[in-house]
Amino acid sequence: MPLVHNITNYVTVNDVANAILACGASPIMSDEPDDVSDITSICGGLNINIGTLNRRSIEAMLISGKRSNALGHPVLLDPVGAGASTLRSNTALEITKQIKLDVIRGNISEIKTLALGSGTTKGVDADAADTVTEENLDGMIAFAKGFSAKTGAVIAITGAIDLVADAEKCYVIRNGRPEMSRITGTGCQLSGITTAFIIANPNNKTEAVAAAVCVMGLAGEIGVSRMTSAEGNSSLRNRIIDAIYNMDAETLNKGAKYEVR
Amino acid sequence: MPLVHNITNYVTVNDVANAILACGASPIMSDEPDDVSDITSICGGLNINIGTLNRRSIEAMLISGKRSNALGHPVLLDPVGAGASTLRSNTALEITKQIKLDVIRGNISEIKTLALGSGTTKGVDADAADTVTEENLDGMIAFAKGFSAKTGAVIAITGAIDLVADAEKCYVIRNGRPEMSRITGTGCQLSGITTAFIIANPNNKTEAVAAAVCVMGLAGEIGVSRMTSAEGNSSLRNRIIDAIYNMDAETLNKGAKYEVR
Amino acid sequence: MPLVHNITNYVTVNDVANAILACGASPIMSDEPDDVSDITSICGGLNINIGTLNRRSIEAMLISGKRSNALGHPVLLDPVGAGASTLRSNTALEITKQIKLDVIRGNISEIKTLALGSGTTKGVDADAADTVTEENLDGMIAFAKGFSAKTGAVIAITGAIDLVADAEKCYVIRNGRPEMSRITGTGCQLSGITTAFIIANPNNKTEAVAAAVCVMGLAGEIGVSRMTSAEGNSSLRNRIIDAIYNMDAETLNKGAKYEVR
Repeated sequence: MPLVHNITNYVTVNDVANAILACGASPIMSDEPDDVSDITSICGGLNINIGTLNRRSIEAMLISGKRSNALGHPVLLDPVGAGASTLRSNTALEITKQIKLDVIRGNISEIKTLALGSGTTKGVDADAADTVTEENLDGMIAFAKGFSAKTGAVIAITGAIDLVADAEKCYVIRNGRPEMSRITGTGCQLSGITTAFIIANPNNKTEAVAAAVCVMGLAGEIGVSRMTSAEGNSSLRNRIIDAIYNMDAETLNKGAKYEVR
Repeated sequence: MPLVHNITNYVTVNDVANAILACGASPIMSDEPDDVSDITSICGGLNINIGTLNRRSIEAMLISGKRSNALGHPVLLDPVGAGASTLRSNTALEITKQIKLDVIRGNISEIKTLALGSGTTKGVDADAADTVTEENLDGMIAFAKGFSAKTGAVIAITGAIDLVADAEKCYVIRNGRPEMSRITGTGCQLSGITTAFIIANPNNKTEAVAAAVCVMGLAGEIGVSRMTSAEGNSSLRNRIIDAIYNMDAETLNKGAKYEVR
Repeated sequence: MPLVHNITNYVTVNDVANAILACGASPIMSDEPDDVSDITSICGGLNINIGTLNRRSIEAMLISGKRSNALGHPVLLDPVGAGASTLRSNTALEITKQIKLDVIRGNISEIKTLALGSGTTKGVDADAADTVTEENLDGMIAFAKGFSAKTGAVIAITGAIDLVADAEKCYVIRNGRPEMSRITGTGCQLSGITTAFIIANPNNKTEAVAAAVCVMGLAGEIGVSRMTSAEGNSSLRNRIIDAIYNMDAETLNKGAKYEVR
């Protein structure tokens, strides 16, 4: 059973833990510099999410990341809010410099901030011109592959259309529902289960990340399909995690909507 | 879409985020002094909740509050536990001194602690003699108006009867259900959505706060009405946020129970 | 109404608060050293959970624990992850040395780490040989009684079979369901409600702890029995807290499965 060390934000941490448990793995949370080296060592991989970073947790992220690298454990970075503040941009950039990352997962604004190396507070606006669409898909695929080639990490850009790229190929994934953006934390949950998937599939990382993205999107579709008219985002949150819990190979194979480019 | 910067407690933070999303706004959480000035700047308003304050987050509250004032963004204070500890009382008082507040929302004990300026750990007991009742309503309304006149903030005192007052008028609101006190965080959620409402309605702040209080109370009524006999406070939490998500003008206009005094 | 001061991890804190409310008590969370002495003083008891400990919260745990001892308030320790890191083992051991504990509640690995006084990162593996089973029950009961005699605390070891022991007797409890391990925080919730129960029953602490363990296990059974086929661990989380909320004496008396040894 993959054991995932999470240094993650306190907003969605409970959902991240339950999502990891839902997919059959096990979560541990620790963000104290004096504690994290030991915790990293007993886990199979590390999920770094800077959503509510602070001076202490940033120190912990760097310690755990280096320890994971030394042990050969996979590391995922979720650069929440990179581009929205100097501290977030600089912290995400510093992590990419000091730590060998296996996966970087974020929205297009966050990933572009990292790719451009820009640490200004303006960062990259998540405006309409900046989302992945059918029209700009070729360019976005090339960007994702190029950033993967540069960093050595699998790049997962999630939004209405999701991209999962290594230097050679890119999964274009069209699962998911717009209602998912009305819940806090579906991205954070995805980062948690993605870390579990790459621990379980160390030799097929790109495929493992693509599978996690499909699972999350499909769980969103199933969750929305089960909502009653009186339900809203709080029930949807539960239904999505429940759908991850009940996801089986047949459901995933039937429901996953992807192409390789 | 109003973007709300929340410096809030880690107990109910997930529900606050989902409640803000439920009402169509968007939440960001950040409590690191090195990060908050940037985050405040990109948001439309600030929600300060001292529920699990610490030295670091207190510093962040003051930085963000001053930055919001400089930018002309609205600021709400939820003085959780003022009167229950010296640190909470003194922090809430310090915030009222250093930051121009647009709204102060709390229970009667917390608001009285601020009004009396008392920083003792005894504070104001939330005993029966101290709640807002039909019997003491006139006096409580006068108190709320007077405290609003003194501070310049809209004063929202929530309990069995809710009061939302500026210096001139007071909304007396009788929505809500006693079962809401068996869930953690309905007050924190209200502070979050109130901040969203005042960002969206900067020229009618008192009405915006009163509307948010009606929405929360009415969502509680709808939530309780939908509970099955096997359900309890955890399901009610979900049903209330779901009701906020599904709230429309017709439901609110029909269900809001208030008078202006 | 028992008021419980919780210094607990940020992963499951919301569920702990709602579980405490579900059983009719009231939670307060505070982990700032400058705040905790006042908060401890107004509460009836203290729940210390080291799940996401940090330097600041460790300081707060020791301040609150000593203050509780001075006031004669009961204190529970949940040594989450003792044995998994040096910091966790040493912190749990330090707390047992500096603070008179009324209850220690954990899994067998955590309790053995404390009993052996071992602060190594290897700690005690939670391997199969180390769980409480029908085969090793006599030895485990003797161990629990012995550790209670040594510490003066009621010892609660939870797992497939739960043990609640003082120096003289041991409740062997067979409530609960394996699905509970697929949710984060059922152990943390149990520590929260156990603290409420010992505040309410100061003269029968062992029985109060055993009752809390039965309530939690029975709530798990009820929760699982109400799950639909589309539901998973997120809905189960809600159903368990709901079952605590609806627990009455008749349900508990009928459903509690225990023997005294």
